[in-house]
Amino acid sequence: MELHSIIVNATVITVDESNRIIMDGAVAFKNGVITYVGATPEELELYDEVIDGRHRYVLPGLINTHGHVGMSLLRGYADDLPLQTWLKEKIWPWEARFTDEHVRWGTGLSLIEMIRTGTTTFVDMYDHNEAIAGIVAPSGMRAALCCGMIGSGDPGVQDRKLADAVSFAKDWHRQANGRISVMLAPHAPYTCTPHFISQIIDKAAQLQLPVHTHMSETNWEVELNVQQYGCRPVAHLHKLGMFERSALVAHAVHLTEEEIDLLAECNVRVSHNVVSNLKLASGVAPVPQMLARGISVSLGTDSSVSNNNLNLFEELKLAAIVHKGTTYDPLAVPAETALRMATRNGADGVFQSDSIGSIEIGKQADLIMIDAGKANFQPAHNPVSHVVYAANGLDVTDTIVAGKFLMRKGELMTLDEERMIYEANRMVRQLMNEDRPAHSK
Amino acid sequence: MELHSIIVNATVITVDESNRIIMDGAVAFKNGVITYVGATPEELELYDEVIDGRHRYVLPGLINTHGHVGMSLLRGYADDLPLQTWLKEKIWPWEARFTDEHVRWGTGLSLIEMIRTGTTTFVDMYDHNEAIAGIVAPSGMRAALCCGMIGSGDPGVQDRKLADAVSFAKDWHRQANGRISVMLAPHAPYTCTPHFISQIIDKAAQLQLPVHTHMSETNWEVELNVQQYGCRPVAHLHKLGMFERSALVAHAVHLTEEEIDLLAECNVRVSHNVVSNLKLASGVAPVPQMLARGISVSLGTDSSVSNNNLNLFEELKLAAIVHKGTTYDPLAVPAETALRMATRNGADGVFQSDSIGSIEIGKQADLIMIDAGKANFQPAHNPVSHVVYAANGLDVTDTIVAGKFLMRKGELMTLDEERMIYEANRMVRQLMNEDRPAHSK
Ligand SMILES: [Zn+2]
Ligand SMILES: [Zn+2]
Repeated sequence: MELHSIIVNATVITVDESNRIIMDGAVAFKNGVITYVGATPEELELYDEVIDGRHRYVLPGLINTHGHVGMSLLRGYADDLPLQTWLKEKIWPWEARFTDEHVRWGTGLSLIEMIRTGTTTFVDMYDHNEAIAGIVAPSGMRAALCCGMIGSGDPGVQDRKLADAVSFAKDWHRQANGRISVMLAPHAPYTCTPHFISQIIDKAAQLQLPVHTHMSETNWEVELNVQQYGCRPVAHLHKLGMFERSALVAHAVHLTEEEIDLLAECNVRVSHNVVSNLKLASGVAPVPQMLARGISVSLGTDSSVSNNNLNLFEELKLAAIVHKGTTYDPLAVPAETALRMATRNGADGVFQSDSIGSIEIGKQADLIMIDAGKANFQPAHNPVSHVVYAANGLDVTDTIVAGKFLMRKGELMTLDEERMIYEANRMVRQLMNEDRPAHSK
Repeated sequence: MELHSIIVNATVITVDESNRIIMDGAVAFKNGVITYVGATPEELELYDEVIDGRHRYVLPGLINTHGHVGMSLLRGYADDLPLQTWLKEKIWPWEARFTDEHVRWGTGLSLIEMIRTGTTTFVDMYDHNEAIAGIVAPSGMRAALCCGMIGSGDPGVQDRKLADAVSFAKDWHRQANGRISVMLAPHAPYTCTPHFISQIIDKAAQLQLPVHTHMSETNWEVELNVQQYGCRPVAHLHKLGMFERSALVAHAVHLTEEEIDLLAECNVRVSHNVVSNLKLASGVAPVPQMLARGISVSLGTDSSVSNNNLNLFEELKLAAIVHKGTTYDPLAVPAETALRMATRNGADGVFQSDSIGSIEIGKQADLIMIDAGKANFQPAHNPVSHVVYAANGLDVTDTIVAGKFLMRKGELMTLDEERMIYEANRMVRQLMNEDRPAHSK
């Protein structure tokens, strides 16, 4: 990447400290890094490539701070069931049979969806992480990957899982030109023994890696935690030392005031998965309260099994409107705040706020362009309002990570969509055939 | 329209009585009416036009049962304010200055958005209805239009408004080949005197027109109704005779069990405006309870000022997930039910269930095609789940009303998008200039 490129004549929504919006603005980048943000310059001779930004909004790429990209083969396989039935009878039996190949093609679908809808960075927790990293690297996306470690019994299994996660971290942390980073992830307090969680935290301290986990998604698991360990999940994880590390927790739906205080005090980052929490009937996280205490709350899709897509524009809009509706407060989460959750706070969530999350000189050129020339962006009153309330993920035309176009004018540049779709369906037919007659269609 | 057309090799989601889904299916239509629904026939010589439906879902067009298309010039002009401030300081002063021309171009934006996102029929309540009908007619859309009558004081004003509404009904009811119908609409119990509502209802009885109103959107108006009239809005409208007519009410957020019973008994149709209710902090309507009592609940966007788009796929997904999340019941509104709300129940809402709302022989050919060949529709497990949970309005490729393509392969066939966008922004600049310096940018 030696070209010095500049997007000109665009509406630049920087999401910087002061939420600066530049009309007829420009963003330049070289070697993957932003070199200029401001008015469209009169002289463009400096630049090797001039990109037309007329009728375009330019924003920092969206950051999806929780998901399971490898699960997309299960999208729509089962919905509208009680959670435990759904997991035990539908999801887990299939997942148990997944090989690297299943996960590779499921991941392919997921990356295509995210690139098409303007996500440039995502956090993922799953198995078969080599298969995931093996496709993330050539896709050009930025990702923080974790092996999701479940360990409620056999110490031998726990040791092996932790060893695998450490080995994955050694292989992949800061790889792919720094686009791939690794966190360590006990799956959840209710699926890991306290001892196993402690072991993982110790290892994270030793390797200087952040930690990620599911926390307080459902009331059921909070009550189970109280029964098993005499305290709620926040206190439990705190005692185990998790919050002394750089920690990102997903969901945080069921929290007391005291728990919110503790999360704020410990600077824990929270991923709000509003669509998944609604669809799985988990509840609505106390986001306005968390934001009021200064917690950095970002947005996550969770998997396409509980969503069922990876279009973060849905989370963006819902983060802005759901809390208004459920608290009767029309000011609960303003549009500007929701947009910060999807960008800057996402950068906090992956502990990379120095390098991504806003359009500023010196940061990575992770940018998206939105076709604001369409009817749903008219009249041109307020770009932030339009992005949050009126846009749709498919209004994104260009997705750029580290200065490289992953989608350009609607065309995917790094992934073969037809191939991914073909292989994903082939994998599913294969699983179904093994399954007959139970799942014969 | 003399051509006999057939869409072949598609996945046809009929939304008929038995929710039949036809794989490798076909839908034929002639003179605006559906002539065949079933497997793709071997012989296609009967047909003048064969339309490729491979990798496409074919569904009945979506029906948006509440909105204000003329307001789109105000999209994004003001958000995130307390309701009364928003209305009194921002929305009403602008609306007061709207002429036919403002409403025409605002409506143009709205129709483009609806056509692009698969809505074929909509209900509208606004002023300047001649301007609205004047653009709906050539757009090819189907609509039930109402003059929104506000009348809390001067009987002279009330008489004039009712006379105008009646004259509009006489001019436009069953016009445009039957695509335009008219309802009579007192704006709301809190903006009309009981006497005025009675007069409107009498006139509706005389002209055999359905009635439409806003009802119980906010707690504030329910309490006001109790203070002013000693009863809640449902009882109030019932006493005034509204429910003896074919009645569609929008919102119905704040209801008691008894009110739900009464609405069910009187066969009142309800338009659920979930995005608008959340954004305006009005609350969440008791939809599962209404459905359980057999009330026909359909979906509405409300205006692009309180939404801020007219993409009914958002309401479709939210209708399916919000009630799960707020009631902790993962079965609250299954995907199939949500899809019925957006189609069949919408047909009930406009009192046209004999002719629209599902894909059945003899019904109007109001159809949409979705590009199910994209990543977010993979793997091909369950088409209804994908339409409700994974789709996005912009996945719609073709929108057909009465057998006529309003959008074909993503191209608008009846409206000039560039013109609409140009005129809408011109109107806004004009209003802003009159406004200076207060709104100078
Ligand atoms: Zn998760
Ligand atoms: Zn309304």
